[in-house]
Amino acid sequence: MISSNASVFSLPIRVYVEDTDAGGIVFYANYLKFMERARTEFMRSLGFDKPALFDGMQFVVQEVAVKYHSPAVLDDQIVVTAVLSKASRARFEMTQQVFRGIESEPGELLVEGSVKIACIDAQSKRAKGMPKSMFETLNGQLG
Amino acid sequence: MISSNASVFSLPIRVYVEDTDAGGIVFYANYLKFMERARTEFMRSLGFDKPALFDGMQFVVQEVAVKYHSPAVLDDQIVVTAVLSKASRARFEMTQQVFRGIESEPGELLVEGSVKIACIDAQSKRAKGMPKSMFETLNGQLG
Amino acid sequence: MISSNASVFSLPIRVYVEDTDAGGIVFYANYLKFMERARTEFMRSLGFDKPALFDGMQFVVQEVAVKYHSPAVLDDQIVVTAVLSKASRARFEMTQQVFRGIESEPGELLVEGSVKIACIDAQSKRAKGMPKSMFETLNGQLG
Amino acid sequence: MISSNASVFSLPIRVYVEDTDAGGIVFYANYLKFMERARTEFMRSLGFDKPALFDGMQFVVQEVAVKYHSPAVLDDQIVVTAVLSKASRARFEMTQQVFRGIESEPGELLVEGSVKIACIDAQSKRAKGMPKSMFETLNGQLG
Repeated sequence: MISSNASVFSLPIRVYVEDTDAGGIVFYANYLKFMERARTEFMRSLGFDKPALFDGMQFVVQEVAVKYHSPAVLDDQIVVTAVLSKASRARFEMTQQVFRGIESEPGELLVEGSVKIACIDAQSKRAKGMPKSMFETLNGQLG
Repeated sequence: MISSNASVFSLPIRVYVEDTDAGGIVFYANYLKFMERARTEFMRSLGFDKPALFDGMQFVVQEVAVKYHSPAVLDDQIVVTAVLSKASRARFEMTQQVFRGIESEPGELLVEGSVKIACIDAQSKRAKGMPKSMFETLNGQLG
Repeated sequence: MISSNASVFSLPIRVYVEDTDAGGIVFYANYLKFMERARTEFMRSLGFDKPALFDGMQFVVQEVAVKYHSPAVLDDQIVVTAVLSKASRARFEMTQQVFRGIESEPGELLVEGSVKIACIDAQSKRAKGMPKSMFETLNGQLG
Repeated sequence: MISSNASVFSLPIRVYVEDTDAGGIVFYANYLKFMERARTEFMRSLGFDKPALFDGMQFVVQEVAVKYHSPAVLDDQIVVTAVLSKASRARFEMTQQVFRGIESEPGELLVEGSVKIACIDAQSKRAKGMPKSMFETLNGQLG
């Protein structure tokens, strides 16, 4: 699925009580929290330290598609990946996966999805291209 | 989009501080909470009072696709709909929309999505068809 | 506990999957969400429609004390109360209770607590007295 | 406050968008999530790997008292401590603090609180003393 050239960013996460529900599994909306954490750390790893609000820009999620294969449960150690699959100055797309296990030994694929993100002006909330230097950095991460 | 025969279930929801994020808008994962509330009340309106755990069955989300058009903000009154778009005994699909406004006067479409749900045995966690009477009730809601 | 003169504001709340945890009960932090919803609606009932950000002021929680007597579970109908127990222009305190049941017929007391809230300037984040008219309205709610 | 003999367990946590609210700060209920994570890792560090459900026992929070001094904000690195301040076989109490900064260099104290936890039988939900070996391990952590 992921081209061999692409950088795969991985974030280890522990499942706590707050993440679970009465069905004994991680609540389906909470994987979107995990995926946002991984995207944030991916951006931070590229030097964008306040990724949620960078240089007068704001990133907003436009579209999400998620498939749930198998649930994570309390106390699981999971790994959440983020791969940049498309990028223009106006928007980019990330492909993300959640595995049970640890980084060096990922296990079962639990959840996977893609997230489309648009760049807007933090003040006017209108579409606005990201700075050229940011785009070039992101573009270098594409597979 | 929604056939004129389909039953459209609507749930009014208020946006509280817990739902918002530092961007000043509802956090993208929280619309999945709103959508789950609407699905639960839709099922309750059909007489399935403990919809999350019915007759030894459990419903698990298999797939979610969401488009975010415009954000809800703090103190907004929103309406979340649930329409049954497909149903078999093994799984069903709901189409859901989030509008700003009140039921009698829905305003701007903020978010829309579809959710695929599978029926599993609560003990074995294996696929299991829902009871025939439940299926017939659900089937009667299709457009 | 509550003087017979005090106004008791009540908000009915349904427990959804998002509120529960793998222990099969409402996660202990989530009662603070319910209590914040009730405080918000109490303020709204007094005419403060954007209570979280009123007239350049912001309310911040300074202290919380909560006792958990018995847990709410999935699908429970609960009632959350808010009573103003102290008020000055700089800060006020609310006493809150969570009951199982409906407003007209509250059942078992599940959780109770008190919340101290300070008024600050939304810009400078420094302490700032609330407007006199707001204080007078709040003061009229004291028992 | 903390005796010099006591073991202070520390957990570093990053503040993500999910933790914040429209006030631009961490939502007050979310510190209780952070505190629960630190308690869980403290227990895990003592060898109780499924601390939420150990040997037929369940731990339930009975009482929480929290003081909020200063807010954490988006992207903050914080440290959450857990110190066992009292322990019997039926219940124990933890004192917890949240600092801005990293473990080796904790900064401003943001939030502090205490949490009383009771041991119950996971099936009957009635009070039940914890196993003697667990009590002895916990007791060894007291200051």
